[in-house]
Amino acid sequence: MNQLPDLAAIEAMDEADPLRSMRDRFSLPDGVVYLDGNSLGPASPSVFGELEKAAREEWGEGLIGSWNSAGWFELPIELGDRIGRLTGAAPGQTVVGDTTSINIYKALHAAMGLRPGRSVIVAEGGSFPTDLYMAEGVVSTRPGTRLLLEGVDAPTIEELIDDRVAVVLVNHVNYKSGELRDMAALTRRAHEAGALVVWDLCHSAGALAVDLDGANVDFAVGCTYKYLNGGPGSPAFIYVAKRHQAEARQPLSGWWGHARPFAFEPRFDADTGIRKFQCGTQPILSLRALKAAFDVWDAVDMALVREKSLALTDLFIRLAETRCGSFGLVLESPREGAKRGSQVSFAHNHAYEIVQALIARGVIGDFRAPATMRFGFTPLYLRYLDVWRAVEALEEVLRTQAWKDERFAARAAVT
Amino acid sequence: MNQLPDLAAIEAMDEADPLRSMRDRFSLPDGVVYLDGNSLGPASPSVFGELEKAAREEWGEGLIGSWNSAGWFELPIELGDRIGRLTGAAPGQTVVGDTTSINIYKALHAAMGLRPGRSVIVAEGGSFPTDLYMAEGVVSTRPGTRLLLEGVDAPTIEELIDDRVAVVLVNHVNYKSGELRDMAALTRRAHEAGALVVWDLCHSAGALAVDLDGANVDFAVGCTYKYLNGGPGSPAFIYVAKRHQAEARQPLSGWWGHARPFAFEPRFDADTGIRKFQCGTQPILSLRALKAAFDVWDAVDMALVREKSLALTDLFIRLAETRCGSFGLVLESPREGAKRGSQVSFAHNHAYEIVQALIARGVIGDFRAPATMRFGFTPLYLRYLDVWRAVEALEEVLRTQAWKDERFAARAAVT
Repeated sequence: MNQLPDLAAIEAMDEADPLRSMRDRFSLPDGVVYLDGNSLGPASPSVFGELEKAAREEWGEGLIGSWNSAGWFELPIELGDRIGRLTGAAPGQTVVGDTTSINIYKALHAAMGLRPGRSVIVAEGGSFPTDLYMAEGVVSTRPGTRLLLEGVDAPTIEELIDDRVAVVLVNHVNYKSGELRDMAALTRRAHEAGALVVWDLCHSAGALAVDLDGANVDFAVGCTYKYLNGGPGSPAFIYVAKRHQAEARQPLSGWWGHARPFAFEPRFDADTGIRKFQCGTQPILSLRALKAAFDVWDAVDMALVREKSLALTDLFIRLAETRCGSFGLVLESPREGAKRGSQVSFAHNHAYEIVQALIARGVIGDFRAPATMRFGFTPLYLRYLDVWRAVEALEEVLRTQAWKDERFAARAAVT
Repeated sequence: MNQLPDLAAIEAMDEADPLRSMRDRFSLPDGVVYLDGNSLGPASPSVFGELEKAAREEWGEGLIGSWNSAGWFELPIELGDRIGRLTGAAPGQTVVGDTTSINIYKALHAAMGLRPGRSVIVAEGGSFPTDLYMAEGVVSTRPGTRLLLEGVDAPTIEELIDDRVAVVLVNHVNYKSGELRDMAALTRRAHEAGALVVWDLCHSAGALAVDLDGANVDFAVGCTYKYLNGGPGSPAFIYVAKRHQAEARQPLSGWWGHARPFAFEPRFDADTGIRKFQCGTQPILSLRALKAAFDVWDAVDMALVREKSLALTDLFIRLAETRCGSFGLVLESPREGAKRGSQVSFAHNHAYEIVQALIARGVIGDFRAPATMRFGFTPLYLRYLDVWRAVEALEEVLRTQAWKDERFAARAAVT
């Protein structure tokens, strides 16, 4: 292992960072080290201007005409294609709208419909819970189907994949540990058994290069308010591989999914392409903020993002273990970079209190029950210096047991 | 019938209007007569300021902490209760989120689950289409159920209601004709047959006094971007009567509907109250605009709104029929005020072209296929003078057949 860098070396790393100028495109409060961009990405000041334009000009002046003149109606398709550039999806396969939960519901129903005679959904016991809750919802409307879980029904997800399985719902990066799955390998394994796969990209879209088409993925979903910085609760996306679009059916068959939405026909006749995965009228102001956030992304090389992400997380692990290892920290994220997303999680008996004490010092990470401290590393606006400062604060909190002497307001963080 | 007013009388009516000052709270382009507030309500300038605060301060500065400190997580509940004040719903029965289409899906599934052994959904053939499309979606996931339509399977909806019927899905005000249903009477009729009712309030919430609790309604849904002026595509709402909440189940069981969403439990355990009708993370910027729009509504007496609405629509019908009746206009809305919502529709063989010619003159209504001109009358910001001007423009277009000589860009309006 290389020698641990000192502050001068850290500053030199920032000087040499090819993504260095991207930080200027984000608005971050002074003195804050923001390691929660994997929960809610920060704002680009350019978004504020675009949002104001959307409100004052498009809505206030353009009124109803802006559905066409300002391109509102096409935003879900336009933004879907721009997400596709970051996730390895050719145009016409991704659409933005609704929430990740709703899109999981659409994808699972569609996948099961494509595999008649198969009755099992496989998912991860350690999944972000809403994925499992939505799978339960799908099962509740499809009598005879079952949900089998990795970690409950078998130790690994691969062991659960057999010829009863219609669809495998799996997270690309685990929300808690940051573990990265091999998308191509698991997709291949599912296909060999005749099953389809739904990938949840919430913690990988915008964090690392994703190659949906290259991995032959069937369906994917993800959110836009974490690494993509679309704003709080900005609408989610769904990817449906071109080869499935004609045959796939989903029961949230709202008017935006109709082949002729403005013909106001009484019977549903689904669009033949990705639009059939739309449902109802989308929240335009939130979509306009997301659109503005994408002006940052369009210039970004995801290979550079991944390279810096690994450097940041490697550095954090090394510094934290060296300087704070004697205080009971246990690494929960994969040590091997190739198996790690863009976050680092440590377990500690006092994880909740430590996270609060860090927040009081301007280092914002988050807590996940029962004992996980979660730190997200987002290469567009974080510096190596931020890693250094975070570890300094962590060391101070642990060394002084600062959290024992402070009162911390209860804080329920939202992933 | 009273004598038809002249311009001086019209101006006197505006002088005497008790809602007159409300117009100052809205932003409308100069010279525009906006009769499309039943499709997209206009903005209040105060909304722009609140939206900027939400973006720059809450998101930009507060970052992840704003989920609690800015009350983001509770917005759906807070706004639901504020909608409840306008729709006759006591607190704790209305929640804002997702789209009208999605909420119809939730309500229909929940209602069918409450009526096991019954297999029929009844709806209106002339419904806004997405209601029917979502009912089709529900039927597709509940084998053995059927959708019967007024106007197709029987002339009136009442004739379809028998002991096979689980739920009746009905629009309070028809999107096309503006016809207003008797909510209390139809709900009573359904209950006598043992069925439940889902009321779609898209064209009545904010347009007239609704009394959901008083009419003993079971479920209701509605949108917030028409008469409520929440902004383009602002999230919808769902009402579930308190008496049904404990037992009701809906399959879009996302984490915001969990009893303990931040415990991240692997199994879904529904909240016992209205929160179980939430699903995933909501678009906060759009919700914050809606919240700001409600600052206007909280001071409004809905009885005054209804009184003025009827006066505006009566005046429009009388003036239009008197001045334009010889040009082939056919009234499609109920002539009797008690049966009419807050819009007036006329049929004409050249309806599409006439609407385009009116828009070119600053009078914005909309077209619905095959031959309907639709004009919405929103008492908070429309004057009697606007009615006068609209009819003057309509008369000019019809008298000169102006639409024959003009080129009109295709325009697909969104309801």
